[in-house]
Amino acid sequence: MVSMIYTQNYLSLTREALLKELRQVLSSNRYEHVLRVEAKALELAQSYGVDEEKASIAALLHDYAKELELGKMFIYAQKYWPEERLESAGEAIWHGPAAAYLTREKFGCKDPEILQAIACHTTGWFHMTPLVQVIYVADYVEDGRSFPGVDKARKLAFEDLTLAVRFKMIESLRHVISRGVYVYPLSLEIYNNWVTRHSTRSVAKK
Amino acid sequence: MVSMIYTQNYLSLTREALLKELRQVLSSNRYEHVLRVEAKALELAQSYGVDEEKASIAALLHDYAKELELGKMFIYAQKYWPEERLESAGEAIWHGPAAAYLTREKFGCKDPEILQAIACHTTGWFHMTPLVQVIYVADYVEDGRSFPGVDKARKLAFEDLTLAVRFKMIESLRHVISRGVYVYPLSLEIYNNWVTRHSTRSVAKK
Repeated sequence: MVSMIYTQNYLSLTREALLKELRQVLSSNRYEHVLRVEAKALELAQSYGVDEEKASIAALLHDYAKELELGKMFIYAQKYWPEERLESAGEAIWHGPAAAYLTREKFGCKDPEILQAIACHTTGWFHMTPLVQVIYVADYVEDGRSFPGVDKARKLAFEDLTLAVRFKMIESLRHVISRGVYVYPLSLEIYNNWVTRHSTRSVAKK
Repeated sequence: MVSMIYTQNYLSLTREALLKELRQVLSSNRYEHVLRVEAKALELAQSYGVDEEKASIAALLHDYAKELELGKMFIYAQKYWPEERLESAGEAIWHGPAAAYLTREKFGCKDPEILQAIACHTTGWFHMTPLVQVIYVADYVEDGRSFPGVDKARKLAFEDLTLAVRFKMIESLRHVISRGVYVYPLSLEIYNNWVTRHSTRSVAKK
């Protein structure tokens, strides 16, 4: 059980008030998922020397917009990423930037790294700080996840965070394509950027 | 054994002269592959009422540029697709348009459908005529191919050409992404266009 006192440097709420808010907004399954992502994010944060309060906040809020009406989700996402043409994307893409928008506007969070970690927890991003990587990976390997390769991903997460990000990026895109559905071009741009900068060879050299 | 007299409406060479040229330019393995693609393309052409001479020409020339020096391959490809920025692509993308360029400039072929079938036999294209689909699929399921799913692809090829194209498009992209290497964005654009226009549901309704 996580217990943590927020400094309120980042958020206008205590952790307890935030949990109460989440219980009101999210289904119980999603609420449990969010707590597991927080637990995993804190383990990873300790392991990689990342700020734990920031990891807790980003983890707890990453799926905050996931159960919104789709139209609202789209509008908030577009407000957060006005430079993107999000019409052709769907809720899988929208719910991240929508949650970042609400975290900023509703809970007064001004920390760009927390907001970024929330916004791109599904898509990843071109450059990802350790905190952003921690949230991206924690969401993928939290203890409730089960998919072929999850053990490998969990092991990688603690061995090499960058390789774990790369692993999720490849597997997520592969999964979408296996289903034969539309891929939002930003996802491919991020994938291309990531796999060319972090080839297994260059990662192995580290 | 295929025997066919070309009308010379499409090419300045007889089929025999073309085979002789191919034997000089291609390794024996690739020459055999090209003959198998022709055989499969002719089977498919008969099955779908596609012009067999055009299918033969496009099949025989589809890999004509594959063993060129890379710099030449790139230059010819860029001349054929001047609107594309092919620098970031590689030989997998270049060898199709490069072969189309040589088919037009060296062998005097002016038939846009043959040239298109050659140019996009790897990438596919947004709109593909039956001939273009036949070459795209024949290259995937010729009798020498062996990969997981090849039996399904072979069956589909004769049941529903459009579904077979979709199958190759999904599996090819999935394969590239599994390897964690750069994907040329045009490939994703074509994939997105194809899977949204030809969902399994709309194909099943035909």
